[in-house]
Amino acid sequence: MRKLRMGMIGGGMGSFIGDVHRKAAAIDGMIELVCGAFSSTAEKSLASGKALLLPEDRCYGSFEEMILREKALPETLRMDFVAIVTPNHMHFAPAKMALENGFHVVCDKPMTLTIEEAKILEQLVQSTGLLFALTHNYPGSPMVKQAKAMVENRDIGTIRKVQVQYLQGWMATAVEDADNKQAAWRVDPSKSGVGGALGDIGTHAHNLLEYITGMQVKELSADLGRVGKGRILDDDANILIRMENGAKGTMSLSQIAVGEENNFAIRIYGEKGSLEWHQENPNELITRWLDQPKKIFTPNGHGLYPQALAASRIPSGHPEGYLEAFANVYKNFAIHLNAFLTKTTIKTPDYPTVSDGIRGVQFIHAAVESDQQNAAWINM
Amino acid sequence: MRKLRMGMIGGGMGSFIGDVHRKAAAIDGMIELVCGAFSSTAEKSLASGKALLLPEDRCYGSFEEMILREKALPETLRMDFVAIVTPNHMHFAPAKMALENGFHVVCDKPMTLTIEEAKILEQLVQSTGLLFALTHNYPGSPMVKQAKAMVENRDIGTIRKVQVQYLQGWMATAVEDADNKQAAWRVDPSKSGVGGALGDIGTHAHNLLEYITGMQVKELSADLGRVGKGRILDDDANILIRMENGAKGTMSLSQIAVGEENNFAIRIYGEKGSLEWHQENPNELITRWLDQPKKIFTPNGHGLYPQALAASRIPSGHPEGYLEAFANVYKNFAIHLNAFLTKTTIKTPDYPTVSDGIRGVQFIHAAVESDQQNAAWINM
Amino acid sequence: MRKLRMGMIGGGMGSFIGDVHRKAAAIDGMIELVCGAFSSTAEKSLASGKALLLPEDRCYGSFEEMILREKALPETLRMDFVAIVTPNHMHFAPAKMALENGFHVVCDKPMTLTIEEAKILEQLVQSTGLLFALTHNYPGSPMVKQAKAMVENRDIGTIRKVQVQYLQGWMATAVEDADNKQAAWRVDPSKSGVGGALGDIGTHAHNLLEYITGMQVKELSADLGRVGKGRILDDDANILIRMENGAKGTMSLSQIAVGEENNFAIRIYGEKGSLEWHQENPNELITRWLDQPKKIFTPNGHGLYPQALAASRIPSGHPEGYLEAFANVYKNFAIHLNAFLTKTTIKTPDYPTVSDGIRGVQFIHAAVESDQQNAAWINM
Amino acid sequence: MRKLRMGMIGGGMGSFIGDVHRKAAAIDGMIELVCGAFSSTAEKSLASGKALLLPEDRCYGSFEEMILREKALPETLRMDFVAIVTPNHMHFAPAKMALENGFHVVCDKPMTLTIEEAKILEQLVQSTGLLFALTHNYPGSPMVKQAKAMVENRDIGTIRKVQVQYLQGWMATAVEDADNKQAAWRVDPSKSGVGGALGDIGTHAHNLLEYITGMQVKELSADLGRVGKGRILDDDANILIRMENGAKGTMSLSQIAVGEENNFAIRIYGEKGSLEWHQENPNELITRWLDQPKKIFTPNGHGLYPQALAASRIPSGHPEGYLEAFANVYKNFAIHLNAFLTKTTIKTPDYPTVSDGIRGVQFIHAAVESDQQNAAWINM
Repeated sequence: MRKLRMGMIGGGMGSFIGDVHRKAAAIDGMIELVCGAFSSTAEKSLASGKALLLPEDRCYGSFEEMILREKALPETLRMDFVAIVTPNHMHFAPAKMALENGFHVVCDKPMTLTIEEAKILEQLVQSTGLLFALTHNYPGSPMVKQAKAMVENRDIGTIRKVQVQYLQGWMATAVEDADNKQAAWRVDPSKSGVGGALGDIGTHAHNLLEYITGMQVKELSADLGRVGKGRILDDDANILIRMENGAKGTMSLSQIAVGEENNFAIRIYGEKGSLEWHQENPNELITRWLDQPKKIFTPNGHGLYPQALAASRIPSGHPEGYLEAFANVYKNFAIHLNAFLTKTTIKTPDYPTVSDGIRGVQFIHAAVESDQQNAAWINM
Repeated sequence: MRKLRMGMIGGGMGSFIGDVHRKAAAIDGMIELVCGAFSSTAEKSLASGKALLLPEDRCYGSFEEMILREKALPETLRMDFVAIVTPNHMHFAPAKMALENGFHVVCDKPMTLTIEEAKILEQLVQSTGLLFALTHNYPGSPMVKQAKAMVENRDIGTIRKVQVQYLQGWMATAVEDADNKQAAWRVDPSKSGVGGALGDIGTHAHNLLEYITGMQVKELSADLGRVGKGRILDDDANILIRMENGAKGTMSLSQIAVGEENNFAIRIYGEKGSLEWHQENPNELITRWLDQPKKIFTPNGHGLYPQALAASRIPSGHPEGYLEAFANVYKNFAIHLNAFLTKTTIKTPDYPTVSDGIRGVQFIHAAVESDQQNAAWINM
Repeated sequence: MRKLRMGMIGGGMGSFIGDVHRKAAAIDGMIELVCGAFSSTAEKSLASGKALLLPEDRCYGSFEEMILREKALPETLRMDFVAIVTPNHMHFAPAKMALENGFHVVCDKPMTLTIEEAKILEQLVQSTGLLFALTHNYPGSPMVKQAKAMVENRDIGTIRKVQVQYLQGWMATAVEDADNKQAAWRVDPSKSGVGGALGDIGTHAHNLLEYITGMQVKELSADLGRVGKGRILDDDANILIRMENGAKGTMSLSQIAVGEENNFAIRIYGEKGSLEWHQENPNELITRWLDQPKKIFTPNGHGLYPQALAASRIPSGHPEGYLEAFANVYKNFAIHLNAFLTKTTIKTPDYPTVSDGIRGVQFIHAAVESDQQNAAWINM
Repeated sequence: MRKLRMGMIGGGMGSFIGDVHRKAAAIDGMIELVCGAFSSTAEKSLASGKALLLPEDRCYGSFEEMILREKALPETLRMDFVAIVTPNHMHFAPAKMALENGFHVVCDKPMTLTIEEAKILEQLVQSTGLLFALTHNYPGSPMVKQAKAMVENRDIGTIRKVQVQYLQGWMATAVEDADNKQAAWRVDPSKSGVGGALGDIGTHAHNLLEYITGMQVKELSADLGRVGKGRILDDDANILIRMENGAKGTMSLSQIAVGEENNFAIRIYGEKGSLEWHQENPNELITRWLDQPKKIFTPNGHGLYPQALAASRIPSGHPEGYLEAFANVYKNFAIHLNAFLTKTTIKTPDYPTVSDGIRGVQFIHAAVESDQQNAAWINM
């Protein structure tokens, strides 16, 4: 194996998520950042690239320029894949162009603004055979892997109830009017799409629910809040869920829940046992049982499935966090990409792909549609 | 003051809630149990009464007998009030008869099976001027008192979102077919009324929400589960909530959430702060703020409102629990009753009354009606 | 069984611990308060007795008066036992006189000021055959019972390490100079004896350690702090422990640990497993294992020993607290006393007795002696 | 700035701590691994280097070879510093040789086996002017930075009591006889030095205590356990502490505490407030106060000092863990080294240095000496 070469689109200085992607990609030493189109102007992009210790000639003024010029480089130099870390409205075009020009793609979520765009990307992935990772990071967490494996192995039996909450407070005041770039584009439908909190955090909640349960949400009924003065998009959502097997549940999302930091939690209740996981303390999986005391699993601790063990780097009791979970998406993508490049056959590593991207966009649209009909049930 | 004399209806040997009422009434030394009609037969009632160290002639075979014979006793001996701790369908008749015969009433929840019955009791309370306490115990918890006071004092500003969950697992299997008397009547509509989990735990959730926020639930949309094989009544519920001021939220109830013991929790989000309380660890009130770190209040700890201080018995760090919260309902009722008997004017102590009882029955019916219409919005 | 009749010595208005004893004795409906010598003057004692709804003629001006006059009452009326809830220096004399006059005794801890006094009480208990309970309440907690049973059943194997902490902050400032009666006598050697924090909380820590492990502390090395200005007695203690089987450990005590409420915690490490319990969240017993995930036991939850089940009153998830644990001491004492009075043979119920009292006084003296020798090892 | 070039000594395949150093160095994109002498044989070293995607000619058979051959490379290529991640007995020689040949050093702890060696390194650092970082990672944690800043700013006033525990269970059984390479050298005095648990975890506990308090441990009294059969070195320690200002405390260390993962916790009690931090949930700093409720600080949360803010990478609520804290040591070392190389004057970044290394070795020796004298007080 050689280090895989990453070109970044977006993520200039001051960007939260660009920095997260770079650190996540770096942790395991399998990927190096070789180039980038970091900002909307060539000047800013160059400044960001220099701060990232890149050579000037690999700092591009636009993603189009980057894709075309990298394509012209010798194979031993040019980037292997792009990482798209722009606001939502800028995911589709670069992803499409990258795929069309032979580059693999890592793309932030939600994948696109519309279901149509999402389907175009899906078709491109299928027709090109290129790899596509969607950076839902929470499935990368070791205890989430354990939860999924416990469901798959039927440790908790048939699922009968679910509960998901994703609560933040950072938009409780009019931060979009202050100097908060992220808030500004998140409240702007032209950049965020039809969903606000739905797109930012709701897609994570939905994705994790389908990931752990191995089932799809069949229908939902959504009552959205637009609490911040003048906001067009939702900053709060209260949703009833029906899963494909008949299990019911609730989803509570908010970005105006004062003082909540990133309180993302999921509870899954089966016939024989139940699972509870909290993102803010990710190194515990709380399990409950019909006839035994509560048991708490930990990364690299006792009684784990191989999937969970594979997702931990360090001994139990040494906490791994958000970046390590995020890095697991990059790591599995890198393992896959290396196998692709070396034409090695392996069991496909577990990371979110273009089909997760479609589900996410469908979720946003279903919730918005339901809300427009006073929380009518919408089939997904 | 003298010790107030309590006569109990229901609560024979093996009854969970009868024992809870007796202990709660005993803790503060203001109330003594003087008589009871504990069971459906005179024989069983006598056996229970003897085990409770009562004289034989104060153990009655029926509530009718008890009310009439106690009424005939001299005022210095006869019971002051009845405590009704029977299954739901046996609340109305004894409550009505007690009021009609001049006895004050403490009654378990839900107050009655129907809204009509509830209103009859309300009218009786008004016309007789007698006292009526409904034993929602959770409002008796010191940290709930603090939460309510913080809302009243506008510490957290206008409420914008709410989230309530009440999760149990004890009915996850067919306990009603095993030797579980409580389960048996709870799944029986003739004894429980139209609600199962709704009546048992949903009324607590609804009551606490209205108690802390000081607002009514305006409308709700309920998707009920009847998960246990053959169950007619709900054992699971997923509900969207709209409060009278426009705040939205979710309510998740379950008695089939495997391994959950009594996981009742509430979160209230205001413009300036938020509150979180968990019944299973009741001696903490978690508060979050726009610009300060999370603060955790404790009973008899720093920074409390008088209402919270008045509800604690022992120094901070010495945990009070379920019984002490329950006892606070009895204590405030006893203070009120003593003032009534001694014709003293006091500020009415804070305990749930007949109007809370009506709201609870309305809540059950609204949720059932909503569910019958595929979770349509129902106005309460 | 009839209600057992309790006479109280000390515990007048404003007393924390007197109120705790009364509530603890009342919860289970087996004991009634019939008389008291609540204060140092007849007037104050009467006022307290009246507030407690006692008849005037059962409110006594001194413990001597109470013991003699109660003794003169007919057997069907007179108190069965005394509850001694005075400051430390007032435990010995009333306990001695009560025993000498045929009354059983419940006594607060530490039992006496000196080892000599403690041994006199032990001999009196033996010679009279009367019952003597020492109110160490923490052994009454259901999860402590479970811990003890797990050790007895060798679930965790041979004990190899222990750790105890009991941290409070209420004496972090000069509260003895403010209007805090308890603080005033606790810093006064003539009333507290040779130990300050050692007597108040150290004896609890020591007792619980010996109770759960079923072993004695063999030797200790104590470094005491007298942090508050002008304090003669310890308000902080740091202690090395060696158990009789060679297990080692630490004990950290403090009453100047700012902001700590009643942070009493114990950890026991065996060859095969370990146990952890926190008084402030008493409804959990955390257990760890060589090859299994952490398991958390709860009162009336799954997997408990009968001793733990017997100590819980209400279903799992309904928290019991400090008063309920305290009440378990009274309850077991009452069961024992009833058997004594009815000459029934039963397995002796589990509550702390005069021998625990001797150990506690020995612990205080050993720690003080060690500290005087710069933390030399002292054999207990 | 350019990427700083790291050469690694030790840390071959299967090494826990080598991998940790590499990931920690990689996260922030300021350092690249360019060469290594990873193992005791050239063959194994090469295999490890290849797996790390290094060129063959930068994989060396010994640290001596690496240092000499790197020194011979042009300045634009050769490594800037070595990272020494070998067992304890292999720290001194490569550190000395690196310094003597002009290379900066990052060295794992404990720094050396003897105090004499430690002082030689200190003199070399002084005489060469080269940089030396000791990888105590816990001071890199944002909430530890906050704790230190709160002490420095006298938020909690004069420190009066301390409590430290570091509890692990991984050596509870005879893992050194199984296939556990780390356990094997840790129980071997020729490789570990005079301390077992003392060196591995005790030095962390001691370092963090001095780091946060800004004070030295003045004297200690240690009672060591050698619990595992046949072990020569301590695997358990119980220590009394006296700080230079007179504050007292306890330290409890163990590697035989069954089921404990990496339970490192510290409590600092001042006159006005107190601090509590747990490594296993590092994203909380619990603070308690004389007259306010408990407040919990979080990374990038409200109310932090700049030192804490500078140590966080991502928004509050997104947990950072062990690797990120470790990376903060590398990051601050890299900032310092960059300033050194570019001859820029900056405020010296905060990371552990050679003087921390000396203190750690002194701590181990003082504890062993105390234990040999039955826990006599030893001055540090």
